[in-house]
Amino acid sequence: MLGLMQHQALTISSLIDFAERHHGEGQVVSRRVEGDIHRYTYKEAAQRSRQLAGVLDALHIEQGERVASIAWNGYRHLEMYFGVSGSGRVLHTINPRMHPEQIAWVIHHAQDQAVFFDMTFLPIAKAIHAKCTSVKHWVALCDADKLPADTGIPGLQSYEALLAPQSPEYSWPELDENTASSMCYTSGTTGNPKAALYSHRSTVLHAYAAALPDVMCLSARDAILPVVPMFHVNAWGIPYSAALTGAKLVFPGPGMDGKSVYELIELEQVSYAAGVPTVWQMLLGHMQTNGLKFSSLKRTVIGGSACPPAMITAFNDLYGVEVLHAWGMTEMSPLGTLCTLKNKHLTLSEEEKMKVRLKQGRGIYGVDMKIVDGSGAELPWDGKTYGDLLVKGPWVIREYYQGAGDALAVMPLMDGWFPTGDVATIDADGYMQITDRSKDVIKSGGEWISSIDIENIAVAHPAIAMAACVGMKHPKWDERPIVLVVKKPGQEVTREELLAFYQGRAAKWQIPDDVVFLDAIPLGATGKMQKSKLRELLTDYLLPDLR
Amino acid sequence: MLGLMQHQALTISSLIDFAERHHGEGQVVSRRVEGDIHRYTYKEAAQRSRQLAGVLDALHIEQGERVASIAWNGYRHLEMYFGVSGSGRVLHTINPRMHPEQIAWVIHHAQDQAVFFDMTFLPIAKAIHAKCTSVKHWVALCDADKLPADTGIPGLQSYEALLAPQSPEYSWPELDENTASSMCYTSGTTGNPKAALYSHRSTVLHAYAAALPDVMCLSARDAILPVVPMFHVNAWGIPYSAALTGAKLVFPGPGMDGKSVYELIELEQVSYAAGVPTVWQMLLGHMQTNGLKFSSLKRTVIGGSACPPAMITAFNDLYGVEVLHAWGMTEMSPLGTLCTLKNKHLTLSEEEKMKVRLKQGRGIYGVDMKIVDGSGAELPWDGKTYGDLLVKGPWVIREYYQGAGDALAVMPLMDGWFPTGDVATIDADGYMQITDRSKDVIKSGGEWISSIDIENIAVAHPAIAMAACVGMKHPKWDERPIVLVVKKPGQEVTREELLAFYQGRAAKWQIPDDVVFLDAIPLGATGKMQKSKLRELLTDYLLPDLR
Repeated sequence: MLGLMQHQALTISSLIDFAERHHGEGQVVSRRVEGDIHRYTYKEAAQRSRQLAGVLDALHIEQGERVASIAWNGYRHLEMYFGVSGSGRVLHTINPRMHPEQIAWVIHHAQDQAVFFDMTFLPIAKAIHAKCTSVKHWVALCDADKLPADTGIPGLQSYEALLAPQSPEYSWPELDENTASSMCYTSGTTGNPKAALYSHRSTVLHAYAAALPDVMCLSARDAILPVVPMFHVNAWGIPYSAALTGAKLVFPGPGMDGKSVYELIELEQVSYAAGVPTVWQMLLGHMQTNGLKFSSLKRTVIGGSACPPAMITAFNDLYGVEVLHAWGMTEMSPLGTLCTLKNKHLTLSEEEKMKVRLKQGRGIYGVDMKIVDGSGAELPWDGKTYGDLLVKGPWVIREYYQGAGDALAVMPLMDGWFPTGDVATIDADGYMQITDRSKDVIKSGGEWISSIDIENIAVAHPAIAMAACVGMKHPKWDERPIVLVVKKPGQEVTREELLAFYQGRAAKWQIPDDVVFLDAIPLGATGKMQKSKLRELLTDYLLPDLR
Repeated sequence: MLGLMQHQALTISSLIDFAERHHGEGQVVSRRVEGDIHRYTYKEAAQRSRQLAGVLDALHIEQGERVASIAWNGYRHLEMYFGVSGSGRVLHTINPRMHPEQIAWVIHHAQDQAVFFDMTFLPIAKAIHAKCTSVKHWVALCDADKLPADTGIPGLQSYEALLAPQSPEYSWPELDENTASSMCYTSGTTGNPKAALYSHRSTVLHAYAAALPDVMCLSARDAILPVVPMFHVNAWGIPYSAALTGAKLVFPGPGMDGKSVYELIELEQVSYAAGVPTVWQMLLGHMQTNGLKFSSLKRTVIGGSACPPAMITAFNDLYGVEVLHAWGMTEMSPLGTLCTLKNKHLTLSEEEKMKVRLKQGRGIYGVDMKIVDGSGAELPWDGKTYGDLLVKGPWVIREYYQGAGDALAVMPLMDGWFPTGDVATIDADGYMQITDRSKDVIKSGGEWISSIDIENIAVAHPAIAMAACVGMKHPKWDERPIVLVVKKPGQEVTREELLAFYQGRAAKWQIPDDVVFLDAIPLGATGKMQKSKLRELLTDYLLPDLR
């Protein structure tokens, strides 16, 4: 027997409809490529999203076809989130930090029909347009008078010129909620990029969950700064959750440096910000150098890679900002776990609470997880046993987009569970802690050493800004860890001092065999350290006892 | 093109599975009919819910068949929420405050196969069992040794005796998320009761929404006291949202008086409570009489009927408890609007904020609403224009259960929208305010007078405990309002003094023509004032100028 409730598909258009109707005067503030600050309301965002849908109709882009963006976080990109997906097309958000060759590859793989780009990325468009045979329309996200006369891109049009003649009256199509809505390629360390193809249903369920008090805790009273890019897993779903809650949105545009981010937080009285550790490192650096404080920021979610404990402490102790540790993946829309406390923790000391906060967190309803051994058998939740982390849920991918031709991108599920490639422990209260990426874990003498643990100890040293631990082949131990470090400006530390720092902080056999000093550690397109690049650098390296 | 995300049905069993797995040690505390306090964990709740599912299998109750409860808020009732619905049967929660004849009527209408009741309600079961021909199993929610020897109910069994032999190992069936999960009859003021038939999907979506920061704001750090009964629209969905968030649950059982509620709040360090105004009136009365304070309570949601402003002020000013005004209906699962502030209100004075808080609130994403005139045309959101309030969304009913035979219960939608029977205004920020029930509004000389406004003024008088305003027929004005009041114990006020109190608080033509003093105002099964009963009392009443 079926229930007798109204049917209403969970669609992305219903999110912007809701924001327009119930939060029409809610603010959307953007730092633009032009450098100025742009302000408008959800009502205007909704109207222009519908105008964009009209543009796509006029360009004869069919339902289900892909429309790409190469853009910063800003209001025009927001309109693409709602106008492209809401009208039944698939928004393909491209990471501009990828190599142009790779960008051309993903545009071809997705068979994008149109590419909309911020003027910052005109050089990319110029470099690749000739190779992108699927693309019928190139659109610059700017006013008509900002369009350079001769770009060499045939038929390049300005976004505003396209929007202007369209009516804000437009009826969103009624879509099956399982219709594809957007896609995001994840840059595999090996092989070609693979895409997650999100649906309206997965996006809306994720938007509900992301706004929960134990997740990002978003309300109509918040002013949200997504520093995490909209080209990176839909800015963790914040644009959708903001529309769902009516929160004020503050977009940083290209201004991702510490000074720009700080100024925007203060100017717009941001209460909540979200981003990856590298951005917060720059923000904290700017604030410490200039003796600044926050006047409105209350909470931040840090994810994308494991957050150094020192950063959590700095935010909490110096600035009174609650730091939530988060973990997720492109393949998970992305939210998987958030580290918020439970009722039983309320009576703990601050020190004991901090121990909990250092973990990646516990699952949100909708995501289940487990750790398994090599044979796939589930391992206990004791906070000590580690194993391969698997997840499942309605916002986790079932398979990659058109992955069948690529050995690495075939149906990835193991008995219905998605293998994350992370190695983790889960404790009795359900708090998960990533101990390593499966491929980064160092196997020494039959034991596993977590590269993350070794890195966290290094960055806890006052002279170290950044650290990467990699395993080097060793004839007796299989692998031995070494640590590659970048010193803070003006700070000094010797190899011997740093190795001595590990005494008492790690078991003897876990202490790295060597320290390599670098000027910089290469970061990937999403701000993560590129260990594959580091391993290339170390091709001729020999461990001390093998020299 | 469809997205490539995992399919996972939104089912009630997945809520208790999540709570068991991720919040296994989370607490469920219940005051029992036996008078003692019972404590266990979500893990035990989940195990016993599965044992109950085994019982229903053993009793040969089929998928989709109805199983009724007549019970207080407590752990065994919680097990029915998950065990009955989770295993594919439909939980029919019966309001024991209905007349036994009406209870027998709804049992027959729902064709309940089994009735589970708290021992408090044994007299009801005794009175009606012979008439309930659909019921094959009567089960008392108690231990085997608490079962009276001779109840006269054939084959009466104890819940614990049934559960004991069942294994906690049980695989929940995989259900279509649109499967019916539970039902609740709403006591119409005219005609027979009508039932909302909820689905797994509507229940889970409502559970997500209910936990949002702008709704009940539920997290794993909360200890929640649902004073609103589990037989009344699923206790506003709190049992489901608690499982979804892992919050501690505190059940009051039969102890709904001020003293019992206060003691439980303090003993279990309740942070959040929800209920109807009449219960809070008793709680505030107990606290004022005894000079008590709260040590843990932070928030309360008050709904079910419009909350008198004096009560919001008392909670805020005397006890530092944030009061959220809420509005909903049985037909809406029940949440429709909650009154939380927006970002734009943060800089308002406390007095201006209070003006916002007095409204019933703004829509949650998932619920849309509109006000219409007599012809169905949408009216403006200006905070002044009032009209019939219509709603729609995935947790709003499409039609009543087997309503086709009843003229009042046929397909109720108007062009896809459910007519609530309320008259309301909506302001430019989306805040809705109920001005009256359509049937209670007083039509005087072509103008409408809100009975709620007149009642709120009366209860703001220090000597008045409760007030009801009804319209009396008048040859010239159509209707004129009179107010029926109950004085506070030991307080005095005359007819003339109370009428004088209206001067300056209402327009002259809105001031009641008369005051009638009563010892009590009859309350319905859900704690609302029964104006139909009052009108019966007034059959021979004449307005002063007609005497």
